[in-house]
Amino acid sequence: MAELPSEPSGWLSKNELEHVREHLPVLYVNVVPVRVDSAGQVTEVGLLLRADDNSIHRALIAGRVLYHERIRDALIRHIEKDLGSVALPRIPASPNPFTVAEYFPTAGVTPFFDSRQHAVALAYVVPVDGDCEPSQNALDIVWITPEEAASEEVLADMTGGQDTLLRRALAHCGMLP
Amino acid sequence: MAELPSEPSGWLSKNELEHVREHLPVLYVNVVPVRVDSAGQVTEVGLLLRADDNSIHRALIAGRVLYHERIRDALIRHIEKDLGSVALPRIPASPNPFTVAEYFPTAGVTPFFDSRQHAVALAYVVPVDGDCEPSQNALDIVWITPEEAASEEVLADMTGGQDTLLRRALAHCGMLP
Amino acid sequence: MAELPSEPSGWLSKNELEHVREHLPVLYVNVVPVRVDSAGQVTEVGLLLRADDNSIHRALIAGRVLYHERIRDALIRHIEKDLGSVALPRIPASPNPFTVAEYFPTAGVTPFFDSRQHAVALAYVVPVDGDCEPSQNALDIVWITPEEAASEEVLADMTGGQDTLLRRALAHCGMLP
Amino acid sequence: MAELPSEPSGWLSKNELEHVREHLPVLYVNVVPVRVDSAGQVTEVGLLLRADDNSIHRALIAGRVLYHERIRDALIRHIEKDLGSVALPRIPASPNPFTVAEYFPTAGVTPFFDSRQHAVALAYVVPVDGDCEPSQNALDIVWITPEEAASEEVLADMTGGQDTLLRRALAHCGMLP
Repeated sequence: MAELPSEPSGWLSKNELEHVREHLPVLYVNVVPVRVDSAGQVTEVGLLLRADDNSIHRALIAGRVLYHERIRDALIRHIEKDLGSVALPRIPASPNPFTVAEYFPTAGVTPFFDSRQHAVALAYVVPVDGDCEPSQNALDIVWITPEEAASEEVLADMTGGQDTLLRRALAHCGMLP
Repeated sequence: MAELPSEPSGWLSKNELEHVREHLPVLYVNVVPVRVDSAGQVTEVGLLLRADDNSIHRALIAGRVLYHERIRDALIRHIEKDLGSVALPRIPASPNPFTVAEYFPTAGVTPFFDSRQHAVALAYVVPVDGDCEPSQNALDIVWITPEEAASEEVLADMTGGQDTLLRRALAHCGMLP
Repeated sequence: MAELPSEPSGWLSKNELEHVREHLPVLYVNVVPVRVDSAGQVTEVGLLLRADDNSIHRALIAGRVLYHERIRDALIRHIEKDLGSVALPRIPASPNPFTVAEYFPTAGVTPFFDSRQHAVALAYVVPVDGDCEPSQNALDIVWITPEEAASEEVLADMTGGQDTLLRRALAHCGMLP
Repeated sequence: MAELPSEPSGWLSKNELEHVREHLPVLYVNVVPVRVDSAGQVTEVGLLLRADDNSIHRALIAGRVLYHERIRDALIRHIEKDLGSVALPRIPASPNPFTVAEYFPTAGVTPFFDSRQHAVALAYVVPVDGDCEPSQNALDIVWITPEEAASEEVLADMTGGQDTLLRRALAHCGMLP
């Protein structure tokens, strides 16, 4: 989950947060932004194009839940951060995530890996109706069909297990081929 | 589920359908229409006011799934039938119902009862954004808060177990007090 | 869904049932039997080996819900039919299926296809603790790891879209690679 | 969520943990232990009897997820802590909680309140098959029917919004009257 540098600092200092990351699981949200047709069926999946270190990869929206922040508000904040302020996200009525992604700092414990921390992400599929424009943290946003999103080529460009998360999202929406 | 008279006949004659209703479970959808705020939280629940026999009661949207009809399309059709054509429903991306209501012709097998048939209803919460106007089958549509919807007074006006269904919908959305 | 010949007739004659199948969606259950470890994690998936016409394929448990039968009881009946009477299935406490599979008699409407009928199947993952032995309808039951179950080789042996259903089940359990 | 004193310290000192609790949401699990019949239907709900300060109340199982601990393992650990080591819990195959309870240190933001911290709890219904005996932290475990569990009398004995959580659990299992 590469969004760390862009994360607001909350009310812990950077040093404190780094210390905590080595001692407690940190709560995250993951979002799979989608376009849907009038019958609710997913027609497109939005992926961020991010440059990290010396590679470019595709990523889902991800970010920390802050102290005294509702999950609903964390979802809105991170979607705005990555897709801009006119994306018009449809935050789900139910608080239930479609899956829970447990990112471990040790590879292989779960399908999810984050070298910096133990992060537990509640994952949601969120339809967006408005215009999306990449923020400073993403080079671009690409919209691809569910079939393309499930292809090996696309999934290979994702890191930390987000390919697994994307497949689970497609399965949840009945769109995994 | 009192919408029977308004149900299209599908491709079975009325006599045939009556015969089938005594021999096979019939597939239905149930819809709890809601208004949500920008964070996705339910602010209002829509209930139909129906006159049946010699009483008036509150009801959810309900109707049969027809032969060769997708559940998504059955949802749209029944929402249009009861809320009009400009309700702008947001059909969920996932096909998963929030609950399954098994209406038995015998009271007490499940919380759901339908004297005419064994009906199995897949139930969905559907946010609607547009204007809603009652069709010929409903006297009116009332929008009430989740707190009101969970009150004994409102629930007592519902029949066949739809009060139970409504409570499950509120619980699913995190809005059952 | 190849279990048709082994299906009990309910209370409709065979001719009547054939007629209905051409006019109404028929309610089914689909079951993915699994073995789990003490932490609940899926370790093995059970697939039936069936001979149909002149080919052999792998299949999930599938069968019709009868008139006046609860879904819970249909699950038990079909699991017993295919895995024997000492499989000790753990029927889920919640009635919510992990997905809904809409089998259409026309290919391409959904990922699911059944030439004989429009069937709507509520699908459940059911852990089984006991001994399983193939019934008269299955040649054998094979238990494979989630990784094997998600392999192209295994999925290619499934028909009617049950490979898609199996992938969705694995995704739901957090076991889709 | 009154289990705080009995919580293992993880790898943060007590002072550090107290500091973190004022700056970050802390990840918890909540468990509703149930007895089920052979068809999976909930027959009894287990509630802990706890003495806090100068009152006695009923409580669900609750506890923190530790650093580098899987949610599945946190569930087992907290169930063992409260129900003993031979409760034989059936941890769900799916990682999806039936709801997410956001406990805020400020009353009224959500239905859940915890004066000590902002805790986000993933909530699961877990059938237990074995013998349960109260640990040192609970005075007793009582098993009551779903109808009793939904009664005002029982719900009034719960604190911090756990009555709401219990109702959501019953609704999820199709057992909320």
